[in-house]
Amino acid sequence: MPSTNLTFAQRDEHRAWLASQAALPAGFRVGVTRFDFMPVEAPKPAKMTLTLLALERPTTAFAAMFTRNAFPGAPVIVGRKRLAEPALGAVIINNKISNVCAPGGVETAERICVATAQALGLTPTQVLPCSTGVIGWSLPADAMIAALPRAAAALTSESIMPAAEGIVTTDLYPKIRRAAVGAGSIVAIAKGAGMIEPNMATMLVYILTDIAVPRAELRPMLARAVDASFNAISVDSDTSTSDTVVALASGRVPFGDWGTFERGLHQVCRDLAEDVVRNGEGVRHVIRVTVKNAASLGLARALGKAIVNGPLFKCAVAGNDPNVGRLIQAIGKYVGAHAPGIDLSHLRASLGGIEIFARGVFQLDPAKEAALVAHLKGAELYQSKPGPDGVFAPPVDFPPHERAVELEIDVGNGAASASVLGGDLTHEYVSENADYRS
Amino acid sequence: MPSTNLTFAQRDEHRAWLASQAALPAGFRVGVTRFDFMPVEAPKPAKMTLTLLALERPTTAFAAMFTRNAFPGAPVIVGRKRLAEPALGAVIINNKISNVCAPGGVETAERICVATAQALGLTPTQVLPCSTGVIGWSLPADAMIAALPRAAAALTSESIMPAAEGIVTTDLYPKIRRAAVGAGSIVAIAKGAGMIEPNMATMLVYILTDIAVPRAELRPMLARAVDASFNAISVDSDTSTSDTVVALASGRVPFGDWGTFERGLHQVCRDLAEDVVRNGEGVRHVIRVTVKNAASLGLARALGKAIVNGPLFKCAVAGNDPNVGRLIQAIGKYVGAHAPGIDLSHLRASLGGIEIFARGVFQLDPAKEAALVAHLKGAELYQSKPGPDGVFAPPVDFPPHERAVELEIDVGNGAASASVLGGDLTHEYVSENADYRS
Repeated sequence: MPSTNLTFAQRDEHRAWLASQAALPAGFRVGVTRFDFMPVEAPKPAKMTLTLLALERPTTAFAAMFTRNAFPGAPVIVGRKRLAEPALGAVIINNKISNVCAPGGVETAERICVATAQALGLTPTQVLPCSTGVIGWSLPADAMIAALPRAAAALTSESIMPAAEGIVTTDLYPKIRRAAVGAGSIVAIAKGAGMIEPNMATMLVYILTDIAVPRAELRPMLARAVDASFNAISVDSDTSTSDTVVALASGRVPFGDWGTFERGLHQVCRDLAEDVVRNGEGVRHVIRVTVKNAASLGLARALGKAIVNGPLFKCAVAGNDPNVGRLIQAIGKYVGAHAPGIDLSHLRASLGGIEIFARGVFQLDPAKEAALVAHLKGAELYQSKPGPDGVFAPPVDFPPHERAVELEIDVGNGAASASVLGGDLTHEYVSENADYRS
Repeated sequence: MPSTNLTFAQRDEHRAWLASQAALPAGFRVGVTRFDFMPVEAPKPAKMTLTLLALERPTTAFAAMFTRNAFPGAPVIVGRKRLAEPALGAVIINNKISNVCAPGGVETAERICVATAQALGLTPTQVLPCSTGVIGWSLPADAMIAALPRAAAALTSESIMPAAEGIVTTDLYPKIRRAAVGAGSIVAIAKGAGMIEPNMATMLVYILTDIAVPRAELRPMLARAVDASFNAISVDSDTSTSDTVVALASGRVPFGDWGTFERGLHQVCRDLAEDVVRNGEGVRHVIRVTVKNAASLGLARALGKAIVNGPLFKCAVAGNDPNVGRLIQAIGKYVGAHAPGIDLSHLRASLGGIEIFARGVFQLDPAKEAALVAHLKGAELYQSKPGPDGVFAPPVDFPPHERAVELEIDVGNGAASASVLGGDLTHEYVSENADYRS
């Protein structure tokens, strides 16, 4: 469940709410700059935004998790090495090009770190690089290094909003979540809309806190929070080569109740993960699957993922069609292929609180069908309509509500439960990823 | 590789070619009837086709494979029991409703068998029932039993075409393949367009032969042929609850060279599997992935499936966009999640015969890009355009050519190879599965 239940009728309302969440914790500064460049691999100019997240003093209390994709981006390779360093002072992030399997990619990432360190008075190993965007292209290192002093000159300690806006690619809106913890706070931003089925981390997420949480506490807490949030979402079942979650603690606010801190961290991660799905490419319905009474946590999560990744069920949801046959198919597909011994005879399923399957057979009638359609329509984020050029694009760039298509699967043969979030499969997703060449 | 390379400019040419393949082997008869009925679960009337495949004399030489979905349809449950029977005399097939997890489904399937046996002078256990269509609805047993005598009266021994046309649901065209074996033949038909990632069998496939092949030879040969054909395709990664492949031998033509027979069986299964993909829901490009030099057959197949099931790569292909970053992402996603120890440093990838990845980095330039686009456009089956109602539907109901998007992945660390077929992800797929409620 989201810890908030927000409804926005207009973009301005959403932006005002984001601004109300955006105050930077003590000890951090943010600076952004934007510039044009000419990619090596493409015939036309492109725009890139450089975002600098800087600590006022380097911190020993930092944590990071990265994609498990077997072709990680160069910044992920460099970032994994940074985990062994004594301290971190800044994160430098670019959008547009992800620096994955490009010739000399690691060397380029390290060059950017050297230039960032020079601009901020740090050593290069105190800088963590992050890149997101097209896979396969090369970073325009010279243009980035030329732009860096402008990002450093823009550093302010007021709002994280410029960074939340600076790191996006196909995102429709910036994503910011915060939690108050003692006299301090946790504030986090995320970037990500497609290629989202994180495996141990998601796209780009930055979590800043002024709480004095030691590294030894922060790292396992981040791993647990990521597992229950970003690892439990899927927009399209694809796993980015750049997924990165970074947590930085400036240590300005003394605190010692790690249970309270961890609850705040989980809340921020869960809310931000839901923001990523709600803003997912082409998503018109968020789908929340709660799996109960499964034999193991792994099975509960896998069943949830099998449902939110089933293309036929996703298409049915897009059409406000309670085609629950496709739902049962998706469960049976997973169990038949990966857990053939599991007893499904006690499985019960409900959609929008309405029981649709029990004791091995569907529980359907025309009245239920009408109620199921109403539940699906109530969770729709916007109506689908092609533009005059035939391209489907969302008409809203803010989340109008936080409702979801609510599925509950009671497996009935164990004690484990899990919640998984996903989205539907729409014309808007196909237009985003086929009609326009990225 | 397909054993034929067919090109059709018009529907008539395709139908004439199908007719040239359609002669029934000796010892078989086919009868079809169509009728209206009122489904229990829906407020409007529907049409159903009943297809009867009958042997002139019951045969001991029959084989069948069924879905591994953990919620199999009632006909699959009954069909598995039939494998232990001494002989089979007929198959009764309905479309429109798949009889999956419907109340009393098995009893209904057995009632249909009793009525079929009465019409043909068989015992009920000599009849195999098959159903395909909507999951969750109940079969109209009384209407089906009333229609059965008309199907029996229509039985002829000339052509399998009425059956190939009778078993379809969302298929755009009937699918028939044949192979000559000695003085006899193997003739097979398939139904299936969506919910296609078979696990040990696919949708509905019927393989008829007049060759006198004993049951003990036929069953393992069918398992091997299915594994290399229907189990190596995916339209949308969903696994039907009704997948069924049945092979029947009438025994009219003596023969003893089982190597030759098995080659014919494999050819028919491979060709028919490719027909199923080429006719897949919304498929505008067939994608053929050949994985070479992998550490195991399982890994080779899994990498091929990971590529043809990657939604972002599928969308790129739909847009004739050689977004090879998404291809490498799909490989890395699978290996990172399921085979993290594998060495990928020797991996080479080509698209349309053009090398795109080697030694850990992309091998791209603008000239290659143009050639890759040309390869993708050359494999397109039709142009995408919405109708006046905004719904996308294929403008052709025949396969204009047998070209495919050709991918070769040389893993470089083993000796196993596999070929996997899939399709792109298109507006036509979304329209088929979301815009119209099925």
